Order: sequence, then structure tokens, then C-alpha cells
Amino acid sequence: MKVTANIRVFLKDGVLDPQGVTIGRALQDLGFGNVLQVSTGKMFKLELDAETEVEAKKIAGDAASKLLANPIIERFEVEVVR
Amino acid sequence: MKVTANIRVFLKDGVLDPQGVTIGRALQDLGFGNVLQVSTGKMFKLELDAETEVEAKKIAGDAASKLLANPIIERFEVEVVR
Repeated sequence: MKVTANIRVFLKDGVLDPQGVTIGRALQDLGFGNVLQVSTGKMFKLELDAETEVEAKKIAGDAASKLLANPIIERFEVEVVR
Repeated sequence: MKVTANIRVFLKDGVLDPQGVTIGRALQDLGFGNVLQVSTGKMFKLELDAETEVEAKKIAGDAASKLLANPIIERFEVEVVR
């Protein structure tokens, strides 16, 4: 069965996000005065072949913890679609 | 009112995603043989000050089209939380 898994990777709370700070400043300069804070993250969409949604979630979680996220500074969440 | 808006930026269909291809190959090499395809995207979480959720969505959409997404090759979606 073909399944899509969305993996979202965020920086852990307390980890500096200089890209987010820079984007926040740029938005202020562009006139977006009501944008108070910006944080950034990454997304990965995996098309995978799995028997069940539970298996798909496990594969995607393994892929995230082995390759896609850095467990020292990042956390991730997996969502299986269809 | 303090509102959180999540902006997700994807490459448009048909645009090459070399980062996704490379990650797909790396996952194959790591033994994830059932991962068929990988595509990548970016996420931005905006904390903003808005009167209504509709206004928050408009501000986030403007920010995405002016700064966060490249309309030539990327599309985005905005989701307002709380």
C-alpha cells in the first residue's frame, strides 16, 4: 500500500533560531509591525510502501531519527496521510 | 489578540527537488528500501498580533508572498491556530 508520511522538524525550545530572528527583522522592515516572533522548521514528505499506517508511521519515525532530524537540537512529529 | 500562524512552503509540482532526491538516496543506502520518494519543504511559525483570525491569515499570507516563498517555484499554505 502506498502511504504518504509528513515529517515536521522543529528546533527544540531554548535552541537559538537565528534564521527566524533574521526573518522577523526583515518582516518588521517590510512593515509587518504586528509580527512578534518567527520560528523556522523543515518539512519532508515521504511516499512509502507499507502494509499498514502504523508501519508507515514507524518507518517515517525511524527515518526522521536516523537522518532527517538532529536529536540534540531538534524534535520532530510524524503524520501519516491516507 | 495573540495568534499563531503556520506557513508551509512547498516546491511547485514539476520543480526539481535535488535535496529530496539526495535524501531519498541516503535513506535507500541506510536500508529504507520502502521509501519511494522524498520531497522537502519549509515551515515558518509566526506569532502575531491581530484582531481576528481572518486578519491573522491575511497578514501571514502577505508575509509569505512578499518574503517567505518564491512565487516562481514555490507555493504555500497558511493555517491559523487558536
